[in-house]
Amino acid sequence: MQLTRIDQVAVVVEDLDAALETLARQYGLAPAYREVLEDPGIEEAMIDLAGVWLQVIAPTRDDSVVSDWLRAHGPGLHHLGFGVDDLGAALRELPANGGRPRSLTPMTGGSGHQVGFVEPDPLLGVLVELVQNG
Amino acid sequence: MQLTRIDQVAVVVEDLDAALETLARQYGLAPAYREVLEDPGIEEAMIDLAGVWLQVIAPTRDDSVVSDWLRAHGPGLHHLGFGVDDLGAALRELPANGGRPRSLTPMTGGSGHQVGFVEPDPLLGVLVELVQNG
Repeated sequence: MQLTRIDQVAVVVEDLDAALETLARQYGLAPAYREVLEDPGIEEAMIDLAGVWLQVIAPTRDDSVVSDWLRAHGPGLHHLGFGVDDLGAALRELPANGGRPRSLTPMTGGSGHQVGFVEPDPLLGVLVELVQNG
Repeated sequence: MQLTRIDQVAVVVEDLDAALETLARQYGLAPAYREVLEDPGIEEAMIDLAGVWLQVIAPTRDDSVVSDWLRAHGPGLHHLGFGVDDLGAALRELPANGGRPRSLTPMTGGSGHQVGFVEPDPLLGVLVELVQNG
């Protein structure tokens, strides 16, 4: 695998509207679009920064995929997403190199993109999302 | 202020060589350069991903600027850096908008760049570094 670009930097917050108001007031940032994802129980706002997404995520229910993390950590940087040319091959080759993908097959993420998550490596502590390049 | 690009995503680790070996093995990533910063007591490795830096930082002494954070959190995503056209003006205007810059004047960071840090906003939980655009 050869990563060549950062696709997204994701921040998880409690209150999406309040967080976006702060980003607008302090930094002049506004989302290109917002999207509710029913299955993981989140709403995400996507801010385009020269082709890299700053993704702001909030839970829409108490048992969302980010709720436990949010209760444990409070708001903050949650994961880092990289684009890959062949997502399926990338996920399948990771275990032999010490990586721990949550699934060896891609799933459908925001905007219908094919994605895969990789558990934080003990040396790095970063939850990684791999995103199929368009 | 109008942020337009992400300059860097910073990860703090215990062992820089071991972290870089993992990034090379799992993701094909290699640093463009490494730099020791004596004053903050860190070594950083800079990985270029299509113009956005993935910055991997490790302490070089027990009282470095990242040591307390590392003891409290373990390795992981540490801060997010954005480029700005007028760093001095950006830092000075933040307090009126609820932002908390550590200093109202720029300091010299890695590679001699002028930078300024902004304390995490309670709603976002993200330590922000502003970097003067070249």
